[in-house]
Amino acid sequence: MSISFKNDYSEGCHPRILETLSHTNTVQQDGYGTDEYCQRAADLILQKANAPQSKVHFVSGGTQANMLVIAASLRPHESVIAANTGHIYTNETGAIEATGHKINAIEGINGKLTPTQVQQVLDGHSNKPHVLKQKMVYISHSTEMGTIYTKNELTELSNFCKANNLYLFMDGARLGQGIMAEDSDLSLEDIALLTDVFWIGGTKNGALLGEAIVIAHSAIQEDFAFHIKQRGAMLSKGRILGLQFLELFKDDLFFDLAKYANEQAMKIKQTFIEKDISFWAETTTNQIFPILHINQISQLSQNFSFHHWRKIDEEHSAIRLITSWATNKSSIDTLIDKIVRLK
Amino acid sequence: MSISFKNDYSEGCHPRILETLSHTNTVQQDGYGTDEYCQRAADLILQKANAPQSKVHFVSGGTQANMLVIAASLRPHESVIAANTGHIYTNETGAIEATGHKINAIEGINGKLTPTQVQQVLDGHSNKPHVLKQKMVYISHSTEMGTIYTKNELTELSNFCKANNLYLFMDGARLGQGIMAEDSDLSLEDIALLTDVFWIGGTKNGALLGEAIVIAHSAIQEDFAFHIKQRGAMLSKGRILGLQFLELFKDDLFFDLAKYANEQAMKIKQTFIEKDISFWAETTTNQIFPILHINQISQLSQNFSFHHWRKIDEEHSAIRLITSWATNKSSIDTLIDKIVRLK
Amino acid sequence: MSISFKNDYSEGCHPRILETLSHTNTVQQDGYGTDEYCQRAADLILQKANAPQSKVHFVSGGTQANMLVIAASLRPHESVIAANTGHIYTNETGAIEATGHKINAIEGINGKLTPTQVQQVLDGHSNKPHVLKQKMVYISHSTEMGTIYTKNELTELSNFCKANNLYLFMDGARLGQGIMAEDSDLSLEDIALLTDVFWIGGTKNGALLGEAIVIAHSAIQEDFAFHIKQRGAMLSKGRILGLQFLELFKDDLFFDLAKYANEQAMKIKQTFIEKDISFWAETTTNQIFPILHINQISQLSQNFSFHHWRKIDEEHSAIRLITSWATNKSSIDTLIDKIVRLK
Amino acid sequence: MSISFKNDYSEGCHPRILETLSHTNTVQQDGYGTDEYCQRAADLILQKANAPQSKVHFVSGGTQANMLVIAASLRPHESVIAANTGHIYTNETGAIEATGHKINAIEGINGKLTPTQVQQVLDGHSNKPHVLKQKMVYISHSTEMGTIYTKNELTELSNFCKANNLYLFMDGARLGQGIMAEDSDLSLEDIALLTDVFWIGGTKNGALLGEAIVIAHSAIQEDFAFHIKQRGAMLSKGRILGLQFLELFKDDLFFDLAKYANEQAMKIKQTFIEKDISFWAETTTNQIFPILHINQISQLSQNFSFHHWRKIDEEHSAIRLITSWATNKSSIDTLIDKIVRLK
Repeated sequence: MSISFKNDYSEGCHPRILETLSHTNTVQQDGYGTDEYCQRAADLILQKANAPQSKVHFVSGGTQANMLVIAASLRPHESVIAANTGHIYTNETGAIEATGHKINAIEGINGKLTPTQVQQVLDGHSNKPHVLKQKMVYISHSTEMGTIYTKNELTELSNFCKANNLYLFMDGARLGQGIMAEDSDLSLEDIALLTDVFWIGGTKNGALLGEAIVIAHSAIQEDFAFHIKQRGAMLSKGRILGLQFLELFKDDLFFDLAKYANEQAMKIKQTFIEKDISFWAETTTNQIFPILHINQISQLSQNFSFHHWRKIDEEHSAIRLITSWATNKSSIDTLIDKIVRLK
Repeated sequence: MSISFKNDYSEGCHPRILETLSHTNTVQQDGYGTDEYCQRAADLILQKANAPQSKVHFVSGGTQANMLVIAASLRPHESVIAANTGHIYTNETGAIEATGHKINAIEGINGKLTPTQVQQVLDGHSNKPHVLKQKMVYISHSTEMGTIYTKNELTELSNFCKANNLYLFMDGARLGQGIMAEDSDLSLEDIALLTDVFWIGGTKNGALLGEAIVIAHSAIQEDFAFHIKQRGAMLSKGRILGLQFLELFKDDLFFDLAKYANEQAMKIKQTFIEKDISFWAETTTNQIFPILHINQISQLSQNFSFHHWRKIDEEHSAIRLITSWATNKSSIDTLIDKIVRLK
Repeated sequence: MSISFKNDYSEGCHPRILETLSHTNTVQQDGYGTDEYCQRAADLILQKANAPQSKVHFVSGGTQANMLVIAASLRPHESVIAANTGHIYTNETGAIEATGHKINAIEGINGKLTPTQVQQVLDGHSNKPHVLKQKMVYISHSTEMGTIYTKNELTELSNFCKANNLYLFMDGARLGQGIMAEDSDLSLEDIALLTDVFWIGGTKNGALLGEAIVIAHSAIQEDFAFHIKQRGAMLSKGRILGLQFLELFKDDLFFDLAKYANEQAMKIKQTFIEKDISFWAETTTNQIFPILHINQISQLSQNFSFHHWRKIDEEHSAIRLITSWATNKSSIDTLIDKIVRLK
Repeated sequence: MSISFKNDYSEGCHPRILETLSHTNTVQQDGYGTDEYCQRAADLILQKANAPQSKVHFVSGGTQANMLVIAASLRPHESVIAANTGHIYTNETGAIEATGHKINAIEGINGKLTPTQVQQVLDGHSNKPHVLKQKMVYISHSTEMGTIYTKNELTELSNFCKANNLYLFMDGARLGQGIMAEDSDLSLEDIALLTDVFWIGGTKNGALLGEAIVIAHSAIQEDFAFHIKQRGAMLSKGRILGLQFLELFKDDLFFDLAKYANEQAMKIKQTFIEKDISFWAETTTNQIFPILHINQISQLSQNFSFHHWRKIDEEHSAIRLITSWATNKSSIDTLIDKIVRLK
């Protein structure tokens, strides 16, 4: 049977999550996120992020987190700027537009936005009120291309946003992987300081489901729970979200799992490098995009499943291989062995 | 410490759910509900409902299920009719209106709608196109008042809806409890036959989270997965929803848990009856609403937590006591003992 | 042929409007409401309303004005309170809900709201965040029942709204008629002072089309033009709205027309009174609702068209007769003559 | 004072429109577009378009027409494809997104779309249901760049749309100018036959305000009046829209005005050509975009107002000059004289 490197949500959850769900199973708690696990998990996250004034809300998934944050932040005539590789622009079935808001997309650089690009969007919208008012910048870390922001890059973007009255919002579906990249100089504290709102992805880093939205800006904090309920994102048993984040953050589990995922990807990457195979994107996180001959892809497909990412030319395509906390070391060995023997 | 009879989602999940999550934890599956567990659970549900042409989709919660079904079914100028006790009208923070649709609410009878009442709404909307076009009737079973539809009542309503080109939609947050009520003559098959779309509540009947939307009408079936994704309701690890319903429906667990919950409530109810205490609503499911003197409420509050439901007069209020699959028999005994000694 | 008393928009516009459109026809102006006529009309209105800090925007119709104001004022989780006779609740095809907002309707008194009723709505929404947050109160003056607010009533409601952090919004489709009612003590200045936003109806008082939205509250003023454009309400030739209001307000034409309309209705009303015919609502504006025997209605229908308003009993119904600036005195005489001779 | 060539809505309306408004002013009519003028105008348009099965609705403006048609046609998960120069994408303040729908924009060719480009959008959206379902193609004729579709081009696009289950929708803000272009081979009948829905722009071709939406597809026809009301687009005095289109179409006035506008633009264009000045877009309608040196722009600005369209290089920009039915021949002479003398 095929081993899947298709995504980082092919398995269930880290065993410690299952254990904590079991241990607490019969404890009675209030519903809708007002339980003590959610409260303790929120406190823990804010402590680790050194952001005591921020607020934490737990929701089920990434598209949900994105649409909630954006719809809660913007007035009807305001729009959000994103790279045209951004998840909200490419892969969320118009979830943002369904809340009434346009995404002003622009070509990013390696999946990232710079002040220059954001300024270009602003410059293209001078004919007010016949165009929308830009109010938020959406970025991802790590990005949809597996790349990461440096502390310097994020600082510049953050300063630019403040100067231009734009909220800075970071999609953290793979936040752990971004932070734990070997060449990353950006910490959780930095992110909490430099953004107005961001979320910490649990689903792709060990949880059954769950993302933690961390809100620094008071205008976005206001009445946020109403939005959660209104968008169908408030779980009756909110406890299961709190419990998972409590487990992930009570020690360094969250970071350890991300680091492990990245390391497995880097092992695979190194193997490709040694075969002089190049990449569609230069990544240090848990996603790699080798450019392979179609015959090589065919050979890999015999034993592994993965996404065909981009056609490069008639004979080559980039594929995406993705690792996770659950990627078995023996699977890695099997894959590396196969790569070495690719013809 | 206080024993909670506040709701039926105070605990985690039935132990068999945790077991199945554990046993399957490392099995790789595709994401977004395309896993084999979801497929098998869907097949099982349709088999038990004797509805091979229907389609099943799993989502996280009840408000989500409601807004998804309604928004997917209606065109912009169409509205949904509900009892003014309906969950969508009273307790969902305008989730339906946030998708652009008005709820035409009317006073129900014991939380239920009859053809007469639906006709009244239609009669009040003759001034077209200056009023909305009614296209769906929303009902709950068991209702928010703990009452249930008889087979005859549901058949009449179903016939009326068909004759008037209205979809009939049943919110089944407590569907199991409704079906298993001691005086119920309405089966899962009946419901699948008589409605255009309904959902089976897992969250309040043993699951960690999850509701199964069962769609009979082809117009609502069409492209439903797009809506799930767009509203942020498509879990990456959709497997955890499929797995739970697979466990609940592979034998009679789902029905057994509901029956158990109802029985506990009926024991409490009987105790109140023996004390000549009357009820705000006549129920045979897992919710009871005794009308107590404020001193009695105060006495109960010393050991138990519950919702204060309605003020009846200056000295009396109805409270809501709710039981579940998780309600401990010793908790029931403690409560009954206390009720018996109420002064 | 039948003479119509069905509504106050059966004819075109006051001749002076046509004249000013002709006189200015070839003058070049900028588009989208940035022309000098709109500017001068806005200044004039603010001067007459003694509200120099307010802002004026002109739009085409009443439903448009209502949805614009409400959608621009509310965040997604906020709702508007209205009487269940309110135009937004009964006759706008869900226009408000289509912008995502629920209307919390409550039974009014003679079509009007009092602080007591608004408080009832607030009291019914304590279970936050599972219910919407009320943020605006919508009233009409004159009301859909032809009644009017006294200065005292409006002051009390205004004070209540301020104390409860609610915007007070007045629909002025028939504002002129309300202000000019013989028993009115409420002036344009009072209304501008006591509301956060209101609009002045031109369509039903002499204009071809057009309503002037007057915004006092700075939060609603902000970026309002964006909303106008986004909702399709910004006319390229905005000049035609400005020109009409300029003509209506450059002297007392607006008020004179309303007064005339009211007077014609009062003449008819007096005739009914003299025949001991009673009314469904007690009005002093341009709408009257006599309760007639079905035979009488039949007799009137031979020569006049009007709305059948409410069935009162098997043999009686209220009808609505409505007058306007355009109601011919000979039509009034003919109608009165007929009423006198009703059997 | 400056003569404006900024747009085609700087003046009021054609004198015959004012006359017909005057002549009919006191005739009583029913409201909301149910008057006889609207009916007769609709019949006339369908007769001229040779489209007896189509339906006509009159609304106030172009953004309104666009959002109405798109929101009435699409289900929540469906999107509309447009050129990135399309008015709905660039100049409507997110009106389409505010109704919940994403615009899939792609770079057009001279402001136009071809089947190849539409296919590219479809190809980029294969990952269903994680992406939107494309259901409509939006085009403009004449385009925002002043260009026109040939009969052959429109036929190919129409066939492609039919084959791919896409509605074809034409924005006709300047439909008359497109049809009457000297090199046009596309008639009103052709457009009615080849599109599913289009609208005829009155505002930019002689009317005070008003666009006529002509719907061929039965699915879009259904219940359209509800949408008009819900979006605030139903005028009480709908008669003023019907009356204007009646006047414009009772003979060839509509086409004559467009032809006149085009001719004036072509005179100006010829003058630029004779000076060896090139154009940003090759047009034969009432918009021309000469590329001028900034000194030349400065010279023109002394006597004329117009839009600065695109910066071409440090020393050159394209400007937009636009003519209309109202453009005075003496203004044209003055402008031509100035162009001839440009240095």
